[in-house]
Amino acid sequence: MKVDLNCDMGESFGMYELGNDEGMMPYITSANIACGYHAGDPTIMRKTIELAKEHNVQIGAHPSFPDLMGFGRRHMNCTASEIKDYVLYQLGALREFARANGVPIAHCKPHGALYMMAMEDEKVAKAILEGIAKTDDNMIVFAMNNSAVVEVGEKMGVRVAKETYSDREHTETGSIIMTRKGSEIGDYDSMADRVVRMVKEGKVTAHTGNDADVIAETVCIHGDTPGAVKLAKTVHEKLTHNGVEVAPIQNIL
Amino acid sequence: MKVDLNCDMGESFGMYELGNDEGMMPYITSANIACGYHAGDPTIMRKTIELAKEHNVQIGAHPSFPDLMGFGRRHMNCTASEIKDYVLYQLGALREFARANGVPIAHCKPHGALYMMAMEDEKVAKAILEGIAKTDDNMIVFAMNNSAVVEVGEKMGVRVAKETYSDREHTETGSIIMTRKGSEIGDYDSMADRVVRMVKEGKVTAHTGNDADVIAETVCIHGDTPGAVKLAKTVHEKLTHNGVEVAPIQNIL
Amino acid sequence: MKVDLNCDMGESFGMYELGNDEGMMPYITSANIACGYHAGDPTIMRKTIELAKEHNVQIGAHPSFPDLMGFGRRHMNCTASEIKDYVLYQLGALREFARANGVPIAHCKPHGALYMMAMEDEKVAKAILEGIAKTDDNMIVFAMNNSAVVEVGEKMGVRVAKETYSDREHTETGSIIMTRKGSEIGDYDSMADRVVRMVKEGKVTAHTGNDADVIAETVCIHGDTPGAVKLAKTVHEKLTHNGVEVAPIQNIL
Amino acid sequence: MKVDLNCDMGESFGMYELGNDEGMMPYITSANIACGYHAGDPTIMRKTIELAKEHNVQIGAHPSFPDLMGFGRRHMNCTASEIKDYVLYQLGALREFARANGVPIAHCKPHGALYMMAMEDEKVAKAILEGIAKTDDNMIVFAMNNSAVVEVGEKMGVRVAKETYSDREHTETGSIIMTRKGSEIGDYDSMADRVVRMVKEGKVTAHTGNDADVIAETVCIHGDTPGAVKLAKTVHEKLTHNGVEVAPIQNIL
Repeated sequence: MKVDLNCDMGESFGMYELGNDEGMMPYITSANIACGYHAGDPTIMRKTIELAKEHNVQIGAHPSFPDLMGFGRRHMNCTASEIKDYVLYQLGALREFARANGVPIAHCKPHGALYMMAMEDEKVAKAILEGIAKTDDNMIVFAMNNSAVVEVGEKMGVRVAKETYSDREHTETGSIIMTRKGSEIGDYDSMADRVVRMVKEGKVTAHTGNDADVIAETVCIHGDTPGAVKLAKTVHEKLTHNGVEVAPIQNIL
Repeated sequence: MKVDLNCDMGESFGMYELGNDEGMMPYITSANIACGYHAGDPTIMRKTIELAKEHNVQIGAHPSFPDLMGFGRRHMNCTASEIKDYVLYQLGALREFARANGVPIAHCKPHGALYMMAMEDEKVAKAILEGIAKTDDNMIVFAMNNSAVVEVGEKMGVRVAKETYSDREHTETGSIIMTRKGSEIGDYDSMADRVVRMVKEGKVTAHTGNDADVIAETVCIHGDTPGAVKLAKTVHEKLTHNGVEVAPIQNIL
Repeated sequence: MKVDLNCDMGESFGMYELGNDEGMMPYITSANIACGYHAGDPTIMRKTIELAKEHNVQIGAHPSFPDLMGFGRRHMNCTASEIKDYVLYQLGALREFARANGVPIAHCKPHGALYMMAMEDEKVAKAILEGIAKTDDNMIVFAMNNSAVVEVGEKMGVRVAKETYSDREHTETGSIIMTRKGSEIGDYDSMADRVVRMVKEGKVTAHTGNDADVIAETVCIHGDTPGAVKLAKTVHEKLTHNGVEVAPIQNIL
Repeated sequence: MKVDLNCDMGESFGMYELGNDEGMMPYITSANIACGYHAGDPTIMRKTIELAKEHNVQIGAHPSFPDLMGFGRRHMNCTASEIKDYVLYQLGALREFARANGVPIAHCKPHGALYMMAMEDEKVAKAILEGIAKTDDNMIVFAMNNSAVVEVGEKMGVRVAKETYSDREHTETGSIIMTRKGSEIGDYDSMADRVVRMVKEGKVTAHTGNDADVIAETVCIHGDTPGAVKLAKTVHEKLTHNGVEVAPIQNIL
């Protein structure tokens, strides 16, 4: 029994620092690295890849809508073609730094509004998956249970990893509720126990109070909350303690 | 006897159109494609690569300082490390679209202020060449005769193609004078004759009136002047007529 | 009987030129000037104001979502508070150049996606109108017939000018269909005749073929189509010929 | 005997937080507010003005080169005309939020590379001062002792406030050494004592060890260092204790 732990990283920009990448690295297996559209700049991308390599953490792209001012969190009605082009641009930029460091890009997790739109809108899902498939047969895309990305990915033969969240509430269909912060869900121990249950039993208590079925191949821990490192550490320990191996997603799918 | 003809391309942005890429493609052998920092956006990059592929024109990166408002023409005192990171970012973004189209990136020509600074400043030259060498042993960098890029490239073992200009005046050391437009040099025939002489005799009449020695492995034709297509056609015809084969740079070096 | 003729202007950016502002100025009475978010930069804003002043054309702000790559044409789900802040930022930037030239800003027309959203969404309409009202009691906002901006403006006591289009089809409720180009509507004479009828009779043949009631206090002529100057000239001549005075909006409301 | 205490503020951006504006406000009399080119966005500009108003702190503009990625710290060889346009754009944007809050903009302090270039280069100094003078006869510009801005300002009749620094070393001519951090100068008490001496005696120990003559009409405290609030508090207390009134610059010049 295995699970991947992923975290958004490299979300600083220029002078601005965000998240605690160094603190999170020891506990995760997949780093989703911002590519300059919602966060990140070339220097930060290089440094984040170097840091991930040092910790033997798998590198993934974290592309977004071009909206630095809104941190990529605002829906934009771009065309499918534009979205595909934006994903390729960001993916390629990140891949060059990975090449320079002799490490591969193994996965891709769209950011913010692009992620949410891809989960619900088949056209957006398809645009992203087609872009990725065109340059890399092997890449794994992260997506919520029962989302458009999972559906479209299966049809297209693109590998999709089913994702749940350590610090957000889930709906009964396996979606997540982005606006609820982890701190409202409970303490670190409860959150970590919930992760263990998602992985081992395939169950989570949804925000309605009912149990929902979920497949947790990769679990996200947001790095920009104060207690993120503590949460990551607790989740990692509880998983290991319960006989679940924490491993990069390409060793799981 | 061979020479490469290169042109800056993909310098449109969003709604904005610049240059006449379609008109120029039939006459050139190397397209220097903007990568989003001074011009170009993901959609334009993709379309420009598709167009170059269609015309069997070799694809190169045309990276810049991050200065869309100034079209990359303003010197910025970035650090060597920043420049290296900016070049890799842009190069990678372009490479991904090349990958998606099954074509390689064969050369790199820095744009505007970055180009001029690289010619004069060893640290900038080194930053660019190191970035490129780290991800691609085979890439060819375009540079003016007797420039810092030529010198540093020789030391580092990076392939550099010596470049002259069809539409700018040259100094006695083989540099060019960017502010003088081609139209002031003379008519298309004179400009084309001058190119033929640079290639066949290794000589050009410098702005001083004296002859200067130049090596013309690749010759630039700027695409954003009204008569650019006419000039490109005339240069191509005169070269061919005078027994010079117009060929992509990797067939020459 | 009077009508204002307005045109979007100053939509160039850096090296990029868009529209034919010089050609349009003699025929219009209100210039909607881009403020750097979808188009325009400080230098272009200054030059456009100087040009408008020279032609005695009234200056207005043309604020947008922050989306240069998409020319402000993509819906973004910004909050009301963000929209208000964005409008004030752009309005103020333009006002400073107007101050430096001793001319006032008399009107505001939101651009592209922001315009369309403001017409349909009361919250967006209110955000824009509140922003404007806070700094300028006298400013006139341009809006389509029967739109949310007209309704909210009336409630708030903000002056709204009812706008129709010379080069777009109208719906039966007075909205316009943005994607249909003027060239599909007919020749310049037909388009100009249609404008005359909208102003004099308050009627337009909607895209359905039925007549619709419209109030045309200001009529937009898009400046970025090849025949725009010809259209503007024809509209201006036909209006004058039919006894309609072409005058800036503050002389009409 | 009076002195103004100024601090750069509103230098957050989107999701990114920088500085401790709330902490600094009680101790300063002039807030230099970023205007979106190196830092700041419309929402942050509004909030910073609201905060300054609440603390009765005088509002000033803090314009920069357009370089968000480099935080405005990289020299750019823009033309005088471009610089003038950039200053007006940013100033106007800020002024609109000030208008909306019923407070004036009383001063202007260029940021980072633009500040340093203005101190040394007469053309840059003149560009900035001309821009400001054109829209506001009364505005006060902050500048280092013996700088180009002081000289040009005197010729032009623009009011310039002579500025020294609480947390940077000074040269013998009254310039400052930007790269040395305050922490290297000494403890808070020593730094505050140094400020008191600059104000009361017009003397500072330069980095050479010799005494230099300085006029300290306004003293800058950088807000982005961890101990900035402590430093500001100590400086304010020592000044008051030594009979120096801390007052906004327009009450001093």
